[in-house]
Amino acid sequence: MNAPLPAHLLPALAPRAVPAAMLDALKAQFGDRCSTAQAVREQHGRDESPIDAPPPEAVVFCESTEDVAAVVKLADHYAVPVIPFGVGSSLEGHLLAVQGGVSIDLSRMNKVIAVNAEDLTVTVQAGVTRMQVNDEIRHTGLFFPIDPGADASIGGMCATRASGTNAVRYGTMRENVLGLTVVTAQGEVIHTGTRARKSSAGYDLTRLMIGSEGTLGVMTEITLRVYPQPEAVSAATCTFPSIDAAVRTTIQIIQMGIPIARCELLDGFAVQAVNRHAKLSLTEAPMLLMEFHGSEASVAEQAATVQEIASEHGGEGFQWATTPEERKKLWTARHHAYFAGLQMKPGCRTVTTDTCVPISRLAESVVSASEEAVAAGLQHYIVGHVGDGNFHIAYLVDPTKPDERETAERLNEALVMRALAMNGTCTGEHGIGLHKMGFLVSEAGTGAIEMMRTVKRALDPKNIMNPGKIFAL
Amino acid sequence: MNAPLPAHLLPALAPRAVPAAMLDALKAQFGDRCSTAQAVREQHGRDESPIDAPPPEAVVFCESTEDVAAVVKLADHYAVPVIPFGVGSSLEGHLLAVQGGVSIDLSRMNKVIAVNAEDLTVTVQAGVTRMQVNDEIRHTGLFFPIDPGADASIGGMCATRASGTNAVRYGTMRENVLGLTVVTAQGEVIHTGTRARKSSAGYDLTRLMIGSEGTLGVMTEITLRVYPQPEAVSAATCTFPSIDAAVRTTIQIIQMGIPIARCELLDGFAVQAVNRHAKLSLTEAPMLLMEFHGSEASVAEQAATVQEIASEHGGEGFQWATTPEERKKLWTARHHAYFAGLQMKPGCRTVTTDTCVPISRLAESVVSASEEAVAAGLQHYIVGHVGDGNFHIAYLVDPTKPDERETAERLNEALVMRALAMNGTCTGEHGIGLHKMGFLVSEAGTGAIEMMRTVKRALDPKNIMNPGKIFAL
Repeated sequence: MNAPLPAHLLPALAPRAVPAAMLDALKAQFGDRCSTAQAVREQHGRDESPIDAPPPEAVVFCESTEDVAAVVKLADHYAVPVIPFGVGSSLEGHLLAVQGGVSIDLSRMNKVIAVNAEDLTVTVQAGVTRMQVNDEIRHTGLFFPIDPGADASIGGMCATRASGTNAVRYGTMRENVLGLTVVTAQGEVIHTGTRARKSSAGYDLTRLMIGSEGTLGVMTEITLRVYPQPEAVSAATCTFPSIDAAVRTTIQIIQMGIPIARCELLDGFAVQAVNRHAKLSLTEAPMLLMEFHGSEASVAEQAATVQEIASEHGGEGFQWATTPEERKKLWTARHHAYFAGLQMKPGCRTVTTDTCVPISRLAESVVSASEEAVAAGLQHYIVGHVGDGNFHIAYLVDPTKPDERETAERLNEALVMRALAMNGTCTGEHGIGLHKMGFLVSEAGTGAIEMMRTVKRALDPKNIMNPGKIFAL
Repeated sequence: MNAPLPAHLLPALAPRAVPAAMLDALKAQFGDRCSTAQAVREQHGRDESPIDAPPPEAVVFCESTEDVAAVVKLADHYAVPVIPFGVGSSLEGHLLAVQGGVSIDLSRMNKVIAVNAEDLTVTVQAGVTRMQVNDEIRHTGLFFPIDPGADASIGGMCATRASGTNAVRYGTMRENVLGLTVVTAQGEVIHTGTRARKSSAGYDLTRLMIGSEGTLGVMTEITLRVYPQPEAVSAATCTFPSIDAAVRTTIQIIQMGIPIARCELLDGFAVQAVNRHAKLSLTEAPMLLMEFHGSEASVAEQAATVQEIASEHGGEGFQWATTPEERKKLWTARHHAYFAGLQMKPGCRTVTTDTCVPISRLAESVVSASEEAVAAGLQHYIVGHVGDGNFHIAYLVDPTKPDERETAERLNEALVMRALAMNGTCTGEHGIGLHKMGFLVSEAGTGAIEMMRTVKRALDPKNIMNPGKIFAL
């Protein structure tokens, strides 16, 4: 059992019962695809956050936009909350049924609807995962770059405005979604955007939905930008004498405008965790894990420049991985860092930070986070999409020791407040969910929050779309 | 005198008088900076669109966010429309006071507030123009790429979600604005975004404002992403036997993922206009005007690949411009195409189209537009940001001949409907304004329009922010 919901979040906990008539209607329409089994409800009532809450009262496995619209129409009629669910990899409590209601499971909406290779666009159902997209388009010579580590659903990635390792070159979900099919809070189906690369046609409803965490509507179909697989790809690891040196190397790479495709930091603890988990033998010191995309000549040129910059900062032991197998091994290890970290302290859960700061302040930001965690004696590791100014310190917290959780939250708060003072953000890619609601107020200010609330109240007047998340209404 | 407002737009014309008490209050607060002179009002009551409407009743020259807030607070109190004004380069009637009210002139808000070169960000007041930004940051080795041709204000570029020649590589205003200071419809000042490159912190209010055409708030300060000036830049022109061949070359460049920085089409008529206006001697045939950014080696490699593709499509006469002076001459000529075009038919005004389609459909889209204009015997020229799938056919219309205007609108409509059938958009970068309101309904559908209206009504319940634009309320 995990720690209870922190006191400041309790206002979000105002469960609204699902009336028997609604459950009957759902069962009549969906049969076995509407489940009230305890195990199913519990699986849909948690995510990878360290927060627990009661599960939803029912789960409906939707197979089409029409299914979703039918559930939402009932929810609208009975003023009952609905919570979209993809694969459950959220880190901030997005999926928790803090106000009760029905979980809308989209995992069976797993079809790639259209591959328009000649236009560099792909349209998918929301339950398709990022790896599935890439598996299904590989033969076309294209790929979808956004990679948050977990094999998240595209719908979930839209909901949290996800990014990850390739964002430094290819942007985030914000830049790579062209259009959406959305079920509104009234159960109506609307379409946003087009398959054109750019548009000035009215309000940017696509971007309003991206990052809205299920609070404004349910995204059911998504048109993505995809890219030609680069002619050449090369990955490298390089070890540094300090976190500071690794981050300063990154800062210089970005300031010089080198089109690096991935630039990931792992601190010594993260490398240690990855070594144990993936049976690798990487040097257990601060490390940059980089990737270059382009023509053969361009990749060679980028790599040479970066190697020079790294050397100036004491980087050494440049190891190249040019075959797909070697690269896959490295990136799989990086992607498993979260689970590798959990295994460093059996039974623990993680409190993960997600600040993103202007690039020149990154070294200060990462180094102070590391030093404070060491000083507090709290087990942790650091990984970061440092090319974007974004990093995560994961505090490993024993759920039976409330003081560890308190220490982690205290360090997190100090770190966030420093990031905000640097004109940064409390969350680069994980979203607000339940966990960062207080930070959002500090970051956006009451005026901007009030504008968000006004939009929410207008589009979802009954407050049924994933209520209790992002801000208190 | 221009043609009157078309009949279908008349519902937008419901002028609300500015009460004497409000004018008195404005004059008391702003003195000479509040003008009701006929010439000033008329200058602020028109733009580069072919539409005329009565001018605003007053113009206030604001010098700060606080000034703007003061005007909007009065407008809110008296329920009077306000219309932000930058340099007046809008093409779609955005600046027309169709419901009366007060023009808020932002041209004196022309200060670059902060240059954070080490973070690749610049913060400016809304009245700063794109050329001014570049003049003021040139010494840092950085540049701001978004270039709609006209030396538009950054605030205006935000309002229409502008893009232009560099968007194929660097994105549009959507991708390059990090944060905003906004005066809401209630005259409150809010801040959106941060200086971090990415964020998942709540609703994307920045993107909601970008492209909102002054209808949701007045953007007064803008934080932009800027980029290191490339080590090498090379521009080239290449002539093609047909528009089709030039566009097919472009399609192949994009599909191969070549990171071309600019890829502009000019048809034979556009080249002719540019030749006369800029005293150049370019071959008067369909032409691509391209630019490559990168390291010396990368630019050479891109150029060689593109030259090969062009040759396959019959492109010839590759002319290189590698010195800044030669490049400037070429791009200045391109940027003056609009005025050069006007001079081809003295006294004319232009009806300009702005469709953007998925790249594979571009050749069909441009060729049919050209053929239809020729068949209709209407003088015209074509320029296009073809790397994005976006092009403009400008019909030169004699304002004394209503049938020419009618023909232009009929051709425009046919062209837009074809673009929508291709999953494209009626406007890639100019915005909806007054002129494309009907097209937006066809493109977005009533559900999405209703969502836009709901957002508008919630944020601007008195409908005072540039009313009558984008959609009918």
